[in-house]
Amino acid sequence: MIGERIGILEAMRSRRSVREYQRKGVSLRKMFRILDAGRYAPSGANQQPWLYIVVDGEKLKLRIRREAEKVDEKFHESAPSWLKRWLRDQGITLEKRFLTEAPYLIVVAGFTKAPYWLESTWTSIAYMILAAQGEGLATLTYTPGSTSFLNDILDIPREYSPVAIIPVGYPSESQRMRKRPRKRLKEIAFHNKYGRSIIK
Amino acid sequence: MIGERIGILEAMRSRRSVREYQRKGVSLRKMFRILDAGRYAPSGANQQPWLYIVVDGEKLKLRIRREAEKVDEKFHESAPSWLKRWLRDQGITLEKRFLTEAPYLIVVAGFTKAPYWLESTWTSIAYMILAAQGEGLATLTYTPGSTSFLNDILDIPREYSPVAIIPVGYPSESQRMRKRPRKRLKEIAFHNKYGRSIIK
Repeated sequence: MIGERIGILEAMRSRRSVREYQRKGVSLRKMFRILDAGRYAPSGANQQPWLYIVVDGEKLKLRIRREAEKVDEKFHESAPSWLKRWLRDQGITLEKRFLTEAPYLIVVAGFTKAPYWLESTWTSIAYMILAAQGEGLATLTYTPGSTSFLNDILDIPREYSPVAIIPVGYPSESQRMRKRPRKRLKEIAFHNKYGRSIIK
Repeated sequence: MIGERIGILEAMRSRRSVREYQRKGVSLRKMFRILDAGRYAPSGANQQPWLYIVVDGEKLKLRIRREAEKVDEKFHESAPSWLKRWLRDQGITLEKRFLTEAPYLIVVAGFTKAPYWLESTWTSIAYMILAAQGEGLATLTYTPGSTSFLNDILDIPREYSPVAIIPVGYPSESQRMRKRPRKRLKEIAFHNKYGRSIIK
């Protein structure tokens, strides 16, 4: 599965969010193609408000993991009960092993003074996770409960708000096959008016 | 250029935001593949908070256009001067012809009670615009200055916030070749710390 070969729809349909990674390294060439892909996203007034910090230092990853686990614990305490149940059902714990196991993390931040900065930055994230899929690599769009610790650790200026940490690596065998159910099209798509089916 | 054939990176690099469309119709099969692609985006707690209303009624498109032009006029009045200048330089006026010229509009809304609903919904938008590119179709991620008029016109419940209108169609000849400059990778990507180059 090489970036230029895999079809777009195939990449979208086959991608799964992955929380367990092999220790296997990722080539720099692949990482550059993924980062490069992010640049092409459309953005509000073409301001391209995104910033990517690629993290591969082992100590740095561990520091990020510890802080993320701390803020997530706080976030979890105040989470609604349906979300706690969902997390439990998914086997998602407060332990964020993927932050140290994945060979690379991409910390994505947005310049908060640009118009539609959050929307644009997430469009750019979507481009990168699909490019990674095209490279045969797994990702997760992980959003810590709060993110200002990333400004501190990575020296990111305050006008940039980190929005996600994207681990990039090869998925563990068990995660590769994981199912993520999706709503059917007729539940979410309508014709000319909410509630009117697009399917005859 | 058929969806399954074009490479992901090629789709990303070749896509341009398009504001002028041919009147030529778009096959329903292509539209379904585009909408279907949106379903596969990852979302906060897999809540899939997106909603797509496909609009092709001529009167309805005109009504949406008139309202969008109204809210954009207000938005423009209070816009910062750099943004007004950018719009002028791009030849972007308050006339939103693409809203009536494109054969289809996809109005995308997000369920505001879901976690990370805005982020998830924009990820889904990114999937759709790339799928459209794979189908040889052009799009624009158009964000009206305010969007509640779309709740009214399309009967969308108030818990859903419309975030964008995506015209879908064949680009006019002049728009096809339009350049959209991008920042260079070294301006936006860093290694382990803000400001530290990833390129040796």
